[in-house]
Amino acid sequence: MVDIATRVYNHKWKVDTIVHSLLDTDFYKLLMCQSVYRNKPDTTVTFSLINRTKSIRLAELIDEGELREQLDHIRTLRLSRGESTFLRGNTFYGKRQMFRPDFMEWFEGLQLPPYHLEKHDGQYELTFEGKWPEVMMWEIPALAVLMELRSRAVLRTMGRFELQVLYARAMTKLWEKIEKLRQIDGLKLADFGTRRRHSFLWQDWAVQALLEGMEGKFIGTSNCLIAMRREVEAIGTNAHELPMVYSALTNSDAELAQAPYQVLADWHEEHDGNLRIMLPDTYGTEGFLARAPEWLAKWTGIRIDSGDPATGAETAIRWWRARGEDPREKLVIFSDGLDVDKIAELHGQFAGRVKVSFGWGTMLTNDFRGLAPNDGLAPFSVVCKAIAANGRPTVKLSDNPNKAMGPVDEIARYKRVFQVGKQAAMDVVV
Amino acid sequence: MVDIATRVYNHKWKVDTIVHSLLDTDFYKLLMCQSVYRNKPDTTVTFSLINRTKSIRLAELIDEGELREQLDHIRTLRLSRGESTFLRGNTFYGKRQMFRPDFMEWFEGLQLPPYHLEKHDGQYELTFEGKWPEVMMWEIPALAVLMELRSRAVLRTMGRFELQVLYARAMTKLWEKIEKLRQIDGLKLADFGTRRRHSFLWQDWAVQALLEGMEGKFIGTSNCLIAMRREVEAIGTNAHELPMVYSALTNSDAELAQAPYQVLADWHEEHDGNLRIMLPDTYGTEGFLARAPEWLAKWTGIRIDSGDPATGAETAIRWWRARGEDPREKLVIFSDGLDVDKIAELHGQFAGRVKVSFGWGTMLTNDFRGLAPNDGLAPFSVVCKAIAANGRPTVKLSDNPNKAMGPVDEIARYKRVFQVGKQAAMDVVV
Repeated sequence: MVDIATRVYNHKWKVDTIVHSLLDTDFYKLLMCQSVYRNKPDTTVTFSLINRTKSIRLAELIDEGELREQLDHIRTLRLSRGESTFLRGNTFYGKRQMFRPDFMEWFEGLQLPPYHLEKHDGQYELTFEGKWPEVMMWEIPALAVLMELRSRAVLRTMGRFELQVLYARAMTKLWEKIEKLRQIDGLKLADFGTRRRHSFLWQDWAVQALLEGMEGKFIGTSNCLIAMRREVEAIGTNAHELPMVYSALTNSDAELAQAPYQVLADWHEEHDGNLRIMLPDTYGTEGFLARAPEWLAKWTGIRIDSGDPATGAETAIRWWRARGEDPREKLVIFSDGLDVDKIAELHGQFAGRVKVSFGWGTMLTNDFRGLAPNDGLAPFSVVCKAIAANGRPTVKLSDNPNKAMGPVDEIARYKRVFQVGKQAAMDVVV
Repeated sequence: MVDIATRVYNHKWKVDTIVHSLLDTDFYKLLMCQSVYRNKPDTTVTFSLINRTKSIRLAELIDEGELREQLDHIRTLRLSRGESTFLRGNTFYGKRQMFRPDFMEWFEGLQLPPYHLEKHDGQYELTFEGKWPEVMMWEIPALAVLMELRSRAVLRTMGRFELQVLYARAMTKLWEKIEKLRQIDGLKLADFGTRRRHSFLWQDWAVQALLEGMEGKFIGTSNCLIAMRREVEAIGTNAHELPMVYSALTNSDAELAQAPYQVLADWHEEHDGNLRIMLPDTYGTEGFLARAPEWLAKWTGIRIDSGDPATGAETAIRWWRARGEDPREKLVIFSDGLDVDKIAELHGQFAGRVKVSFGWGTMLTNDFRGLAPNDGLAPFSVVCKAIAANGRPTVKLSDNPNKAMGPVDEIARYKRVFQVGKQAAMDVVV
């Protein structure tokens, strides 16, 4: 018998909102936001959505009105009392009161700033401009909205049983991955899949599946809301936007060369232990490590986010040894382009030589490859990056030239300043 | 745990369609349609929606786009193979092959004709013009759509728990009615509530509740689709549109005076037994019976659809006696403005004196009075009537002057021709 009230409730929705909370974002955004709020609160920054998979014509798939509804809805969100209590009271990385009272007060009053949306050549041009601490909070929800609206556009064409089978297959697929991964002794793995998830509910399901299936090898999620709801650790430290914006703000090549270290000096002030994880690839890992100040070798670990991950890890190991550090005491977090085989391979290569951990993203929360007609639900590569700071363009090089971004002449200048030589190009899948 | 496939299915609906079948209509429409298809197939008729409850400003409550989507969807409907098999193979009123093969063939090809929709003074002007057999099939789905869109407009403002409580209360209310009604010995009652139902699902629930609760006193439903699905009798005979259109087509007062009897003469040709039920009130019951031909007194029964029902029934009883008929052998069907108390009262007054049956409508399928804020879900009085035939206006007088419709001069002429004297005005609630 039909439950009429539930039936009416389910179908009366005008807008099925995607992001329901300001905490539905990656934890490192909050850590970085607090740092920015302290160190660079008045910097004007522009974030921009960039769909690197040009074959997916988002503006043709996704209705502009629907997109605006979702973005407008996000602008109505405020940190709720319970969310604030969680941030103020919870232990993050073993530390209480990770978030300072002045930051929390600011966060409680935060409304995300306006967005600017245009269509161009089948793609959306979505930009956010304003004070850095405010604008930066758009990145993850904007990506999640784009990803989920694209999923919905495809799901809309599918029948009820197709949907049942789709999710049954997706669940089976993920569960089989978990069954393989849990056989790896000593594995430590976190969910890093918020930004490219198939949908919120799917990420939430994935976290619950990991929690049940990974037998303690699942260490947490980058998603702050899911961490709160499922009572797991919130995971994350810092990202490229910090060196990108710090660098854009410099006034000379000499200042520029120091900017990535200035970021970490500010971070050093604020955090210790497992939060002292450097992300060395923004302007090339080799050069970054070669020129790094002594104190950085004391940091807890490194995150490898572009280029060949094994090469990056070997580079770090050599560097630690050269600086008199014991790599076995150091943490290497792999977070780029991971799936089961790559995780197993990297774990086999590095476990014991360093402490290893994995931030598993897209292939955890959006591996719908082969599950929909015309592979319409396969994940794709969309990012939302700081492209300008105080009117100056930002640059990212990374260890993969296919991930480089910024004006051509500035890229050339950054390559010169950071002494980046020839880089191996790798396909960017997701 | 959320069933993601079901969740996605529930919320991806662009249009939650209201009418899903050409059989989601009253059974008498099909009987009348077959009669019209045989006797007056080329008559051009205009049907028009009339909201008698002016305080309900439908065009402000209901979005025009949503209304058009629902009406457009109805135009995509065709009789399905299973539905055709049901109509061809089922027994209706104890008779097989009620629907002739030529009619069925026509019905299988039927697409409802275009509609014309305008807004005026907070109301919708919704008209249908075309061949009578096609246009007449719009009446019930058009009404059902208007009623349910109005329900939805109000339901949309309610929260999940409000909805649970709303339907819990509505179910309780209806069940209590059933508990009272089933205590009436010998009661025979049918669902006549399609046109003013709260929603399709609610009517379907009401029929199932009657089926379980009425202990054999529930004899069927006017809704052809629900009759098919729930395997109960489809109930209904004929309605005012037949004498209204027949009358409009006449060329003299003398022809006009005979038109209502011509309708029943055509019906007499086609049907016998329990389908020979006359509806005498179109131009006043008193005069209709007084001037009726002898053969009409032999008919099985009468349906009382306006005016004071007890008065109407007493008039019929006197008339049968005067014509030498035994009223105890005759069937009186009450179908106007019924609820539990009125049903009990009429049953008490007439059971034994005549065979009594009830066609329970709005207060069965839409008694949401007092259940929503500002009584926003209380039923209201909307009809969809034939207003013109071959370019001439139709007229209805009925036994309640508040239900009269047509141009003023034509009403006066009809009153003269049918010798209608003073009538008692009664409020039209639903």
